[in-house]
Amino acid sequence: MERYFDAASTTRISSKALEAILLAEESFFANPSSLHKEGYRAKEELERLRFNIAKLLCVDSNNLVFTSGATESIAAFFSSLLFNEPGEIVTTRIEHEALSSYLQVLSRFGWTIKYVKSKKGIVNPSDIYSSLSDKTKVVAVMSVNNVTGAIEPIKEIREAIDSFEDGKRRKIQFFSDSVQLLGKLDSTPLFSSVDYASFSAHKINGPRGIGLLYVKNPNSFHPLSSAGGQERGKRGGTENLAAIAGFEVALREWIEDNKKEKRAEEINKLLREGIASLGYSINSPSLASPYILSFSTDLPSEVYTRMLSDKGFYVSSGSACSNNAKGKSEAILEAMGVKHIDATHAVRISFDRNVKKEDASSLLKAMEEING
Amino acid sequence: MERYFDAASTTRISSKALEAILLAEESFFANPSSLHKEGYRAKEELERLRFNIAKLLCVDSNNLVFTSGATESIAAFFSSLLFNEPGEIVTTRIEHEALSSYLQVLSRFGWTIKYVKSKKGIVNPSDIYSSLSDKTKVVAVMSVNNVTGAIEPIKEIREAIDSFEDGKRRKIQFFSDSVQLLGKLDSTPLFSSVDYASFSAHKINGPRGIGLLYVKNPNSFHPLSSAGGQERGKRGGTENLAAIAGFEVALREWIEDNKKEKRAEEINKLLREGIASLGYSINSPSLASPYILSFSTDLPSEVYTRMLSDKGFYVSSGSACSNNAKGKSEAILEAMGVKHIDATHAVRISFDRNVKKEDASSLLKAMEEING
Repeated sequence: MERYFDAASTTRISSKALEAILLAEESFFANPSSLHKEGYRAKEELERLRFNIAKLLCVDSNNLVFTSGATESIAAFFSSLLFNEPGEIVTTRIEHEALSSYLQVLSRFGWTIKYVKSKKGIVNPSDIYSSLSDKTKVVAVMSVNNVTGAIEPIKEIREAIDSFEDGKRRKIQFFSDSVQLLGKLDSTPLFSSVDYASFSAHKINGPRGIGLLYVKNPNSFHPLSSAGGQERGKRGGTENLAAIAGFEVALREWIEDNKKEKRAEEINKLLREGIASLGYSINSPSLASPYILSFSTDLPSEVYTRMLSDKGFYVSSGSACSNNAKGKSEAILEAMGVKHIDATHAVRISFDRNVKKEDASSLLKAMEEING
Repeated sequence: MERYFDAASTTRISSKALEAILLAEESFFANPSSLHKEGYRAKEELERLRFNIAKLLCVDSNNLVFTSGATESIAAFFSSLLFNEPGEIVTTRIEHEALSSYLQVLSRFGWTIKYVKSKKGIVNPSDIYSSLSDKTKVVAVMSVNNVTGAIEPIKEIREAIDSFEDGKRRKIQFFSDSVQLLGKLDSTPLFSSVDYASFSAHKINGPRGIGLLYVKNPNSFHPLSSAGGQERGKRGGTENLAAIAGFEVALREWIEDNKKEKRAEEINKLLREGIASLGYSINSPSLASPYILSFSTDLPSEVYTRMLSDKGFYVSSGSACSNNAKGKSEAILEAMGVKHIDATHAVRISFDRNVKKEDASSLLKAMEEING
């Protein structure tokens, strides 16, 4: 039985992804930049994996830069802005700390950060539109919120930007942290809308330490440093081939699984109904990832999550991004319009492909026991 | 038989390191920042591994920040300088591109880069001393050069800095990229001398995607962004526990092996003598890592390395850091005083714990065949 309901923090690596890692360590151990037979073989395998991942995502392999994870992908884009004249960034108050902390960095370098509302967790594209100005250089809105699963209207935000820029040459860069979307939701609207997006493998049963930066126009992306010049000058450091091999398999498993069944939607419905019937309020909007469900009980988050932990069920209050995660999740929920008391009483259930309906029923049963 | 002599580029992962990774993926899969039992267990394991690595290196665990590798460790330190008023950096022309490219970034932000000579590949501490000024904020000299193995006088460079700063409160930060030193040479003089050092696991038969930034005074290091706040605010991103477990084992194997035997020195002597008897000139100074040997033949690097590759032996011309690696290695050799023609004819042999004397003899035999 699966009792781990904190998959938005991280997931167990899949056995097939692990096999792919072992195989790559065995067969392609050389440095893909080495100029000898073993190096060429490793380079060829790297590009084969990049091509496969690109195909799974329906993008061109030139758009994909491998990084150590979404945090680095975010840093790669936002630090590249330091070369530019400071301008305005339009964003939300519900971004992951990996991104919001970088906005603080940019504000120290003279950038202006403009926040749009996110009522019930969802940004209104017309609020984006009315925040744009001639000084706007970047719009940063995540695809799927990690605390409630709220799905943001990425396509409509692009339309708002296009309509503002009507007739002018595109200048505003649209960045979307898309960690909680990858493999789980259709990525077609994302890639047709954004200029940059960030992803991590370990949220979809792939290995830690590997992620992606999607770059729509590779020629216009100039990282702060190209370091050793790997990834066509877009990201330095010896390419982590084994982890990329694991990433490819994990992504393939998720995407193929999603084509076959709607289990997540069914589990989400079961949980929503069960939680509502316990009298708890649901924080996740209806337009949310089926893999994430946030609700508030009558107990402080840390008390309730500990009670579930004592029963062997692992949930979280929000994100697991730092020791101060609880405070951060609270602020994000309050920015969505959740009352302060409910924000401090919030619980996040999140799950992956390993969870079955019976597991969700067991979790609900444990919650009923706590309740009564 | 081991025919891979490009270990300074990357190494095969050791079977014990791989076992440790598998065990960690199995037993400690949760996010170390998650606030539930599985998260606490992962956090405890993370700190146990950090403690063990610190003990192996004879440093305090507070000094160690896990990164995705040396390239990121270098970027973490040099990008943190962007918060400061620009000043002078004293460095060499033989640094790895991961570092030298960052110096170009800093020069774009108004920093002045001062280069000291490195005759025969070794920096003279008195040249460092005479380059220091009241504007000097950083001294950056690598511990062991990746092209020739030259060992730099890190302790004496610290003494030069101290003597310049005599009586003043220490202000100059000493950074040393130490990728080719880790596990292979005594690190005691390094840690007693530098303020910052960078390391990668994959050069010592550990996994890719994991490295270290050594920070002498953690309280005075403020990264450009703390992102998710992991690593006590020094490095964001979900901690790559499995890779750290592999790193710990790989480092332990190297350090314990080095205590037991002097095989590398014997192999190096064998190779030096054999290569000299073929009439080739040796570029590595006598004070060099035994694991790296650079020499120049009468053929262009790419011709000679391909001929060895055709015989199944994998060596390199210099570093494997980019497609343009050959040009970079040439410039580094020329900065060491190697003649242009010899720099373009250079070959680097580098090896790890897996190589035996017989393997080196086979390589020499292949070289004899090419020679005549």
